[in-house]
Amino acid sequence: MAITVVGSVAFDSVETPSGRYDRRLAGAATYFSLAASYFTDVRVIGVVGEDFTAREEAVFHARGVDTQGIERAAGKSFFWQGSYLENLNEAKTHVTELNVFATFEPKIPESYKDSEFLFLANIDPVLQKRVLDGMPQVKLVGGDTMNYWINDHRENLLKVLAGLDVLLINDTETKLLAGHRNPVKAAHDVLGLGPKALVVKHGEFGATAYFSRDAFGDAALATHPFRAPALPLAEVVDPTGAGDSFAGGFFGYIASQPQLTPAVFKRAIFYGSVMGSFAVERFATARLEELTRDEIEERFQLFRELTHLDD
Amino acid sequence: MAITVVGSVAFDSVETPSGRYDRRLAGAATYFSLAASYFTDVRVIGVVGEDFTAREEAVFHARGVDTQGIERAAGKSFFWQGSYLENLNEAKTHVTELNVFATFEPKIPESYKDSEFLFLANIDPVLQKRVLDGMPQVKLVGGDTMNYWINDHRENLLKVLAGLDVLLINDTETKLLAGHRNPVKAAHDVLGLGPKALVVKHGEFGATAYFSRDAFGDAALATHPFRAPALPLAEVVDPTGAGDSFAGGFFGYIASQPQLTPAVFKRAIFYGSVMGSFAVERFATARLEELTRDEIEERFQLFRELTHLDD
Repeated sequence: MAITVVGSVAFDSVETPSGRYDRRLAGAATYFSLAASYFTDVRVIGVVGEDFTAREEAVFHARGVDTQGIERAAGKSFFWQGSYLENLNEAKTHVTELNVFATFEPKIPESYKDSEFLFLANIDPVLQKRVLDGMPQVKLVGGDTMNYWINDHRENLLKVLAGLDVLLINDTETKLLAGHRNPVKAAHDVLGLGPKALVVKHGEFGATAYFSRDAFGDAALATHPFRAPALPLAEVVDPTGAGDSFAGGFFGYIASQPQLTPAVFKRAIFYGSVMGSFAVERFATARLEELTRDEIEERFQLFRELTHLDD
Repeated sequence: MAITVVGSVAFDSVETPSGRYDRRLAGAATYFSLAASYFTDVRVIGVVGEDFTAREEAVFHARGVDTQGIERAAGKSFFWQGSYLENLNEAKTHVTELNVFATFEPKIPESYKDSEFLFLANIDPVLQKRVLDGMPQVKLVGGDTMNYWINDHRENLLKVLAGLDVLLINDTETKLLAGHRNPVKAAHDVLGLGPKALVVKHGEFGATAYFSRDAFGDAALATHPFRAPALPLAEVVDPTGAGDSFAGGFFGYIASQPQLTPAVFKRAIFYGSVMGSFAVERFATARLEELTRDEIEERFQLFRELTHLDD
């Protein structure tokens, strides 16, 4: 079943201990789409400038991603420049240029309107809300956000959270959103804001899912969180997009299954970790462009062996 | 099979967001012994001062721990004062008084000399080495250390590491010991110093085990780390002793099994996490004094559900 994702399609310049690159295709919706494309059909809503050429578009098309909803505008695409020289777990932002995103009004192509899954990748919650309202038929809505929206656009963000089935954010964002330092209490505070499930990403330590009392018709879930590890990696070439790739693997796997059961949800977190672990192996989207389903299944098995007592 | 543990038997004064206590029984060997006592026979080597009374000794005896090797010396026991007010994951040390530990010469009671397991809890590596050399019959040696010994007593520590089967330390200590920031490379550096296995403790995120090429006769282990989570806890009353309790659960479970197989090693890490999760639920050793084997098995099952796809 198809996923529509709205979010940034951008260019990044990044420096890591492994090297650097300038103005390569990036953005939350890009990483999400590529990761999810290994599981299901993906349709993107976003905006790009004149620097987005046939070469960038080909990256989406090679993975079968529908780009009809990527609007072309005069000017430059969203641009981010950052580095991870001191700490691979935390980006230092040097430049953020909204460019064409500053005046973006998302339009939903008619052909997207039968999507059963919607993912609101990290952008202005006002835009997230507009797309959410424009797609009332969706069965399941996931979303992401970041510190900036939590701190400075909280009211708009709360309107989005009220409509989410699954929110995927990291530890710091969870605590910021909750105003609580204990991770379990913070998670339950966030569930109180609307999402039926919260997936808290821990970077190199994986992710934990928390569920609200009525999540997915399984009362037992509410009292039991679920944890999936990240793979201990001997080299992280480029952490950019790891969280978006996690979201793409997670949501893509769910969309590929006939029903959202607790077992599917758990496997989805593993697939999220799997896709995040691939994303960081090469610069920018390089690794996500060239995967095979066999490689994904092999790594899924590795994650299972890494954590299961009886395998 | 019996474990002999050498380490501090001490008094702690601690302040946490949940409250405070003054001069309660503590120390690495104490937490280790109590946690391990639920799995096997434990014998302690250490030194205490005149402040160690029948009341403290009764805590060990209630759990069947052999205290013959706890020497009584004139003066005061080792004393530590610390707090966790800003960060539950990191203690702030206010006072450390070595007291009777300053001149301690460990003596191994004759009745301890048939112990098949030896754990060198966190103390001066010179003392660790002396006990190691005095018990040549042991089948398996585990050990712990801390930043202070890594930074300022490295040569002495390296002599201990060369004789260890399993080293249990945290992320920061692993990186310090290795001089490497990447966790996987750091782990392999540490394995190069002697231990056949390294268990890296991640605090609230559990632990990862890494194995050297010839660890426990299983070449496949060398390429596969193993991860066990910590339980997301809604309240951490007192983090003191969590790492030592982890070590006690881990080593105690191994000592209770007929053979050290990869499966036993994996379960041992889960039992370590289980005992760590109990330790922090109440102040000082309170929770570790009153557990039942049923509670331990129940929590072990919870850890399994928390991480396993098919449970």
